[in-house]
Amino acid sequence: MAEVKITKRADDYSRWYTDVIAAAELADYAPVKGCMIIRPNGYAIWEKMQQALDAMFKETGHQNAYFPMFIPESFLQKEAKHVEGFAPEVAVVTHAGGGKLEEPLVVRPTSETIIWNTYRNWIQSYRDLPLLLNQWANVVRWEMRTRLFLRTTEFLWQEGHTAHATYEDAEEETLKMLNVYKTFAEEYMALPVIPGRKTEREKFAGADHTYSIEAMMGDGKALQAGTSHHLGQNFAKAFDVTFQTQQGTREFVYATSWGLSTRMIGALIMAHGDDNGIIIPPKLATIQVAIVPIARKPEERERVLEAAHRIAGSLKGIGVGVKVDERDNYSPGWKFNDWEKRGVPLRLELGPKDLEKNQVVLARRDTGEKSFVPQDGLVEAVRAMLDGIQKGLFEKAVAFREKNSHVVDDYGKFGELLDAGSFIWSHWCSSDACEERVKNDLKATIRNIPADQKKESGKCVVCGNPSEGRVIFARAY
Amino acid sequence: MAEVKITKRADDYSRWYTDVIAAAELADYAPVKGCMIIRPNGYAIWEKMQQALDAMFKETGHQNAYFPMFIPESFLQKEAKHVEGFAPEVAVVTHAGGGKLEEPLVVRPTSETIIWNTYRNWIQSYRDLPLLLNQWANVVRWEMRTRLFLRTTEFLWQEGHTAHATYEDAEEETLKMLNVYKTFAEEYMALPVIPGRKTEREKFAGADHTYSIEAMMGDGKALQAGTSHHLGQNFAKAFDVTFQTQQGTREFVYATSWGLSTRMIGALIMAHGDDNGIIIPPKLATIQVAIVPIARKPEERERVLEAAHRIAGSLKGIGVGVKVDERDNYSPGWKFNDWEKRGVPLRLELGPKDLEKNQVVLARRDTGEKSFVPQDGLVEAVRAMLDGIQKGLFEKAVAFREKNSHVVDDYGKFGELLDAGSFIWSHWCSSDACEERVKNDLKATIRNIPADQKKESGKCVVCGNPSEGRVIFARAY
Repeated sequence: MAEVKITKRADDYSRWYTDVIAAAELADYAPVKGCMIIRPNGYAIWEKMQQALDAMFKETGHQNAYFPMFIPESFLQKEAKHVEGFAPEVAVVTHAGGGKLEEPLVVRPTSETIIWNTYRNWIQSYRDLPLLLNQWANVVRWEMRTRLFLRTTEFLWQEGHTAHATYEDAEEETLKMLNVYKTFAEEYMALPVIPGRKTEREKFAGADHTYSIEAMMGDGKALQAGTSHHLGQNFAKAFDVTFQTQQGTREFVYATSWGLSTRMIGALIMAHGDDNGIIIPPKLATIQVAIVPIARKPEERERVLEAAHRIAGSLKGIGVGVKVDERDNYSPGWKFNDWEKRGVPLRLELGPKDLEKNQVVLARRDTGEKSFVPQDGLVEAVRAMLDGIQKGLFEKAVAFREKNSHVVDDYGKFGELLDAGSFIWSHWCSSDACEERVKNDLKATIRNIPADQKKESGKCVVCGNPSEGRVIFARAY
Repeated sequence: MAEVKITKRADDYSRWYTDVIAAAELADYAPVKGCMIIRPNGYAIWEKMQQALDAMFKETGHQNAYFPMFIPESFLQKEAKHVEGFAPEVAVVTHAGGGKLEEPLVVRPTSETIIWNTYRNWIQSYRDLPLLLNQWANVVRWEMRTRLFLRTTEFLWQEGHTAHATYEDAEEETLKMLNVYKTFAEEYMALPVIPGRKTEREKFAGADHTYSIEAMMGDGKALQAGTSHHLGQNFAKAFDVTFQTQQGTREFVYATSWGLSTRMIGALIMAHGDDNGIIIPPKLATIQVAIVPIARKPEERERVLEAAHRIAGSLKGIGVGVKVDERDNYSPGWKFNDWEKRGVPLRLELGPKDLEKNQVVLARRDTGEKSFVPQDGLVEAVRAMLDGIQKGLFEKAVAFREKNSHVVDDYGKFGELLDAGSFIWSHWCSSDACEERVKNDLKATIRNIPADQKKESGKCVVCGNPSEGRVIFARAY
């Protein structure tokens, strides 16, 4: 296939993003507007994300289930705020099996309604609570402007839906899962995130309140990387889900939901990628080490390949994902570039001279650093270097975010800082009006009210009214 | 929730099936006609199936990808046989994002069309072949008569879609994946299957030819448990997918597809279940051992629980899935029955007297056999018993199938044997007419032409014309 030349970030960040996806063969647009084809290299990242998250969900007591993707249109209308938020972007099945349906079916944009309609049958008593379920599924939201991974008509995600006896239990769950997302983002994606509470304007349609984790991308914009909603009794009331308490009274059930989607692959690209393409953190890389055997003469080839496979075997033995690049129709240089574009964390080069010296060359994808490493103790060296890359990516992202975060008390400075790409920590009076003004003036939003917000008396950066703490303003994906 | 009483198989097999699903909480019907809610106990089986299959797909060189679930209606029409087979049962999205769509979108009933439309861009040269992809997805087929797991409007499956340079390569792949399905069915599901070729009437819409694995259920009916299709160049021609050969000519690409779905959970229920409910083969059970501590006096409880958790820990240590049943609002007898209904392969009972004697009681779900086992060496004993259950289920299913398989040369005997539940091995002249007559007369079909069919001269059991081997007739799910 045709080679993809990657635009430099400084020249056109948006084209850079598209080029990186094409160069690494992560995804393609589909013939249906806004839909996406996730190619094997992209899907492999999603599989690693799924494995890590699924294990954490199970450790915290959740089970997986599967609910139908078709939802009767009338269900969506049972929760007033929910329908207001989602009705404009649903896809509707009107015909099936050769005839017109009596009631149109909505393709799930999210599954609260179909799930809470079911929970009515499953929850009778306090003994049935908490009910802690998760679902891996595709969902559809008819978006006007789409971008691969970040915003597509159909996307893949997980959605947790839990039921609790009390407000406090639901709040604990909401925060616990927000923290699971934070741990996942930081430990697996090497992506530092700021947990916090969304404003009323920005909360989920149907929630009592919403928490998010917010990350900074390579252009200084924010990306909402996961959300966790306390739904109060809203869906229980809409679908009449009550339970008998230990005291014998009947109460409406409290709910949470939380989701994380394939947009995280977009976040990963923009958080770590450089002008050579994507960089996959070792913990999410299926191929962690690409071994490129270098043998110009045919008689060397066999010997080098044999050594390459021996090394691959010992790395696989400790659980490292390895690929020996045996393609004979490309030069070593072409291959180096190819694995770079694919974001493989570590490249291992091996030629006849290395064999003689009982060494290999290791090249780090993140720093470009090359080093000669003895074959004795190689497995430990590779393990250490992969750990170093994982840590290094995180630290670099933290440093980048710190550099581009600003404490600001003068609304006049907003525009310039936002254009440069910044998180702006400013006082806000809690009014919708000021929030809306920033959006209208500058296309920036309050990302969240940070969980570790310091109590600090100040004046709203927009109107000057009193405020008790700073929130984060930014432009966002 | 209300207790489910399971109807006896001999009284009403069909009700027995529904009761077993309800008793084990495997699935529920959804508010949308024919759709299914897969409950955690059912989904856990599917997850185990996915893990086993996915590992086998990867070992045989396949990668996962994801294609959109919406397919432009015009795509479906490009392959004549394909549209003929699937058009009557598709669900159609006509409206989205608040407006009417220019072209209606079909919800995928299977993904050949969208995938081959994509392969046109991905395949240029012989170097791009073979292309070996698989997708885990939901699909929709608007069925008139639905049954949980066996035939639902929406179901979950995997669909492999591969591209090859030659007919022979595609044939090899088709048979390789049929064999993967056979291995999966026999080694994980403990389900003996007969691989073979489908007749022209029964092949996949758009295939050159189709292979299947066929299993016998507990009522002697057949269930098609997986299919693998050689699609020839049909889809390549419909979507204009050609490649440059090593010799520099251009040729159409050869295709295969193969799929296995959540109907396998239905197969598992009907292959092994007894009057007490489902029996899950150990390799597909998330909970392989349910530990029921028995302590009537409160002062015993702590000691017994402590021992239960110690045993659970050592079983987990060797990878056995264990659950300690700590519920204090149910009697031991109720719990025994509960774990039986859920099909957990092994129950471990533990009371104060067992502690004194340094033993436990192990009860096999498949045979009902109970034995006292010393705590020393318990881990090995459990491992061996689980292996024994896995093997025992398979052998029992083989014996059942043999008992209910008949070599028949007299069409007059068909009716009675089919009513009793049988696989009938008979000669067939290869004509559509005879095949159709059996279907019209007796609601039975040719399941497949067995791969290990013996060459044997004979006369078609229907018309008496010459035949060269026997095929399998049966009624089927």
